[in-house]
Amino acid sequence: MFTYQIDTEVSLALPRPKIDSQTLFEIIKENSQDLGAWLPWAPSIKTVDDEEQFLTSTLQNFGTSTSLNTVILYHGIPVGMISLNKFTESGHITDIGYWLGSQYVGNGIMHRAVTGICAIAFEDYQVHKVEIHAAIENTRSNNVAKNAGFHFDGSLRAKELLLDGFHDENCWSLLATEWAQKNNSRNEKTV
Amino acid sequence: MFTYQIDTEVSLALPRPKIDSQTLFEIIKENSQDLGAWLPWAPSIKTVDDEEQFLTSTLQNFGTSTSLNTVILYHGIPVGMISLNKFTESGHITDIGYWLGSQYVGNGIMHRAVTGICAIAFEDYQVHKVEIHAAIENTRSNNVAKNAGFHFDGSLRAKELLLDGFHDENCWSLLATEWAQKNNSRNEKTV
Amino acid sequence: MFTYQIDTEVSLALPRPKIDSQTLFEIIKENSQDLGAWLPWAPSIKTVDDEEQFLTSTLQNFGTSTSLNTVILYHGIPVGMISLNKFTESGHITDIGYWLGSQYVGNGIMHRAVTGICAIAFEDYQVHKVEIHAAIENTRSNNVAKNAGFHFDGSLRAKELLLDGFHDENCWSLLATEWAQKNNSRNEKTV
Amino acid sequence: MFTYQIDTEVSLALPRPKIDSQTLFEIIKENSQDLGAWLPWAPSIKTVDDEEQFLTSTLQNFGTSTSLNTVILYHGIPVGMISLNKFTESGHITDIGYWLGSQYVGNGIMHRAVTGICAIAFEDYQVHKVEIHAAIENTRSNNVAKNAGFHFDGSLRAKELLLDGFHDENCWSLLATEWAQKNNSRNEKTV
Amino acid sequence: MFTYQIDTEVSLALPRPKIDSQTLFEIIKENSQDLGAWLPWAPSIKTVDDEEQFLTSTLQNFGTSTSLNTVILYHGIPVGMISLNKFTESGHITDIGYWLGSQYVGNGIMHRAVTGICAIAFEDYQVHKVEIHAAIENTRSNNVAKNAGFHFDGSLRAKELLLDGFHDENCWSLLATEWAQKNNSRNEKTV
Amino acid sequence: MFTYQIDTEVSLALPRPKIDSQTLFEIIKENSQDLGAWLPWAPSIKTVDDEEQFLTSTLQNFGTSTSLNTVILYHGIPVGMISLNKFTESGHITDIGYWLGSQYVGNGIMHRAVTGICAIAFEDYQVHKVEIHAAIENTRSNNVAKNAGFHFDGSLRAKELLLDGFHDENCWSLLATEWAQKNNSRNEKTV
Repeated sequence: MFTYQIDTEVSLALPRPKIDSQTLFEIIKENSQDLGAWLPWAPSIKTVDDEEQFLTSTLQNFGTSTSLNTVILYHGIPVGMISLNKFTESGHITDIGYWLGSQYVGNGIMHRAVTGICAIAFEDYQVHKVEIHAAIENTRSNNVAKNAGFHFDGSLRAKELLLDGFHDENCWSLLATEWAQKNNSRNEKTV
Repeated sequence: MFTYQIDTEVSLALPRPKIDSQTLFEIIKENSQDLGAWLPWAPSIKTVDDEEQFLTSTLQNFGTSTSLNTVILYHGIPVGMISLNKFTESGHITDIGYWLGSQYVGNGIMHRAVTGICAIAFEDYQVHKVEIHAAIENTRSNNVAKNAGFHFDGSLRAKELLLDGFHDENCWSLLATEWAQKNNSRNEKTV
Repeated sequence: MFTYQIDTEVSLALPRPKIDSQTLFEIIKENSQDLGAWLPWAPSIKTVDDEEQFLTSTLQNFGTSTSLNTVILYHGIPVGMISLNKFTESGHITDIGYWLGSQYVGNGIMHRAVTGICAIAFEDYQVHKVEIHAAIENTRSNNVAKNAGFHFDGSLRAKELLLDGFHDENCWSLLATEWAQKNNSRNEKTV
Repeated sequence: MFTYQIDTEVSLALPRPKIDSQTLFEIIKENSQDLGAWLPWAPSIKTVDDEEQFLTSTLQNFGTSTSLNTVILYHGIPVGMISLNKFTESGHITDIGYWLGSQYVGNGIMHRAVTGICAIAFEDYQVHKVEIHAAIENTRSNNVAKNAGFHFDGSLRAKELLLDGFHDENCWSLLATEWAQKNNSRNEKTV
Repeated sequence: MFTYQIDTEVSLALPRPKIDSQTLFEIIKENSQDLGAWLPWAPSIKTVDDEEQFLTSTLQNFGTSTSLNTVILYHGIPVGMISLNKFTESGHITDIGYWLGSQYVGNGIMHRAVTGICAIAFEDYQVHKVEIHAAIENTRSNNVAKNAGFHFDGSLRAKELLLDGFHDENCWSLLATEWAQKNNSRNEKTV
Repeated sequence: MFTYQIDTEVSLALPRPKIDSQTLFEIIKENSQDLGAWLPWAPSIKTVDDEEQFLTSTLQNFGTSTSLNTVILYHGIPVGMISLNKFTESGHITDIGYWLGSQYVGNGIMHRAVTGICAIAFEDYQVHKVEIHAAIENTRSNNVAKNAGFHFDGSLRAKELLLDGFHDENCWSLLATEWAQKNNSRNEKTV
């Protein structure tokens, strides 16, 4: 398994569709109500096969540098996923998506996962900006963005299509220059 | 030639690559300095062939409902282009791009073209929102959005890559409900 | 909707698959017996979805300049379709296909539609010849060709596969030079 | 090499691009003036590589049953080519194309090659009609069609684009029923 | 039908999917137990359609020179198949696969078919080596290789996945130089 | 960067084409004579762009589980590459390829890299056998296979095309069962 080690507890792994789909499917199923509120795709994952197909497609997209979906490991156990959802045509902007099994909330896992995937975005993909988009009512996700040092740019109207209709969306951003300042010492360790 | 007639002076036409590339290339060339400031692709159109290839690709994208690029005709003469640049995955949001030969500015052409392409977006493509993105320094384009009744949502940092680097970008939006109210009488005529 | 206006009553529109499939399906269904005699595809359109898929594929073919299928509008109402079925490899010859809901026959609609699509073929696609192929027993279609000023070239044996087997086919042709002569005054108005 | 044996002197072989391109290129080159009059592609074959690429593409088309191009062998030596150029959408009609090095004319080779490829068309591809199209001035080709027992259907105007412009084209046809009658005894031997 | 004639009794024919699938399916079905022991694909051919699809795909692969599957004809009757399964990336090595209806065993058919397809491999595809791979317990197939003059290179462990699990596999080889020596007189006749 | 950590000194990393091509190109260039003897592709890597294109294609192949090419890191520095070159159709057998900059030979790096990629092959790709193919004269590579506990299956004639012609090739194999026995304790640590 290929991983990006963030600290002794948290790492990001590239999915192995046949092997990881079972575990991830179970977390999604257990958390379907929580996840479905903000992740409109959650109800469409009805079987382990659905999840395996999804992971297979994300691996292809990693192979073509179209997007990056990683499994968040906590003490080596899958607990959620975090991704660079897409890159703009010029390749200079990406945005982060994430979800965590509710039983794992409260350990600072997502905070660390965001830090890790930002490092990958700025170092390996050399973007100049990372964005986080969150429905304005999604308190937890907005807090993750805020705590990770992202700047609040503004709210875009009717931008996010959730299961109950369109929601306004907060747009948060972190520039490469800001990240470089904040992570100077960190970079030297992780590169 | 297939057209969408806005009023007796202004219409939008689907491009005919072999026939229209010459005229459009000449306007782009004459206005290269003006256009290049806000349209980073302008300098890459170096020959009539480049323009023909571009028009050919836009026609393919129209055929697959990926985007819509139209030639703005003023008294039957090509004077610029206006487009629905892309549709979001769910097909519910699109954004408008446009340019006009500088010799044609001041006749309210772009205002009418925006009104026309909004009608196409809401009626033919049934989107729920149309956006206009403009670099914050692009006064004319921001005015077009404002005058067309778009709502100013906010400014996103370092969002637009122009020839001289990244610019902050204003995001304007017009909802289907707002458009329906404004254009009630108009709709009845144009449907 | 993008249209080619022939006169105040008749125009040709590019299909909008999601929007136009319902109306067109209903006309095909009402006229299935009439149409099926000469149009072997008619019985395969069994649902609105079938028609939507057909229209979607024709739009893609328009996008790649492979063929052109248009909806005939009479006083703004869809009443049939007319098409340039294909272009020869060199791009210089095309042939016309058409059908009209029987309730609309007798208004000179098809005569005008043929005139319109010939103009598109010669002006926008710059072909040097337009052909009409009609089973020799298809009196109405042969009359349309004749009345539109097409020249009768000859009958090809067992050329058309209809539901009841192979039929000999009349081949009618109109050359660009002939069209230019006939439509000199008209051209100046419609270009 | 895979062949269809017509008689002890003449057979049709599937091309082996790397091996056969040299010989065929040389015949085309020697006969370029003769061939170019009726075969507008002849001048575009400028190198052995051009011919190899052409043969490679024909082999792919054979693999997908899109067309069939064969090398005519006379006493085992390549002397020309004969092909089923395409099949109509329903797969029931095909047309024959052919050329022969001028030094081999006068041995009845093409007459036998046409007989052979008709057998392949009717037996292996189960078409119901084979056509031969020839510019009305192309005496030799029209004679081949006539001598092979094809029926003259008529002349289509400005149908064939040769290097000096459009030519009227004779359309000859042979029906499966006619072929069955003529070749009853022959069939029993070759099947 | 395009064939490679080996002698007066045995020839190899390119498959005609629609025509040959019925006969081949019947032989496979009659011999399913025998074939299934060494040919793990045999049980997946459950209908004539399955066989037609298989033959269609092999024809495409012949068209792209990816592989070569031929029908073995004995006195003009299909009795089995023999193939060049694939070519290595450099195009210099291929390996032979084959099966024969059990009712036809004992006539030296497969021996002659192997000789024929080796000639095609060395002459038409210009490989430098032909291999035969056979499970070590597959006595008949190993004998075919031995009798055709192939050299025994060695046994590779757990190399062949049959229906009852992995089997060690014997690897036999025939070099172009060895084939040239053995077939000197033969070559002169068949080229 | 996504890595598979073997021990404190050696890890395997998925290539980042834009970032890693420069370093890898330099090692290949410095070692071109050594590498070229056994790796026929080495001379074709003439520029950093060639290497970047190669790495880009390997990443796509990883995304589709077609093959796996990794960069060997020694103390975090790229020193060579090791790969699972392909998977058999059934997905049950793979073979290893590798190269190491000559200045890094003698530290047991390749031995450890082979151990690591075997773990990935058996655990993540769940193959039942890993093979190593080495020209019989390639002493170092044969020793790597032997020391890694691979079984010598035999020599295949004229199997490997190097720059100076075909070479016989040794085939080494390690079965999943053998690997499981040897790595029982190790597995528990690395899974």
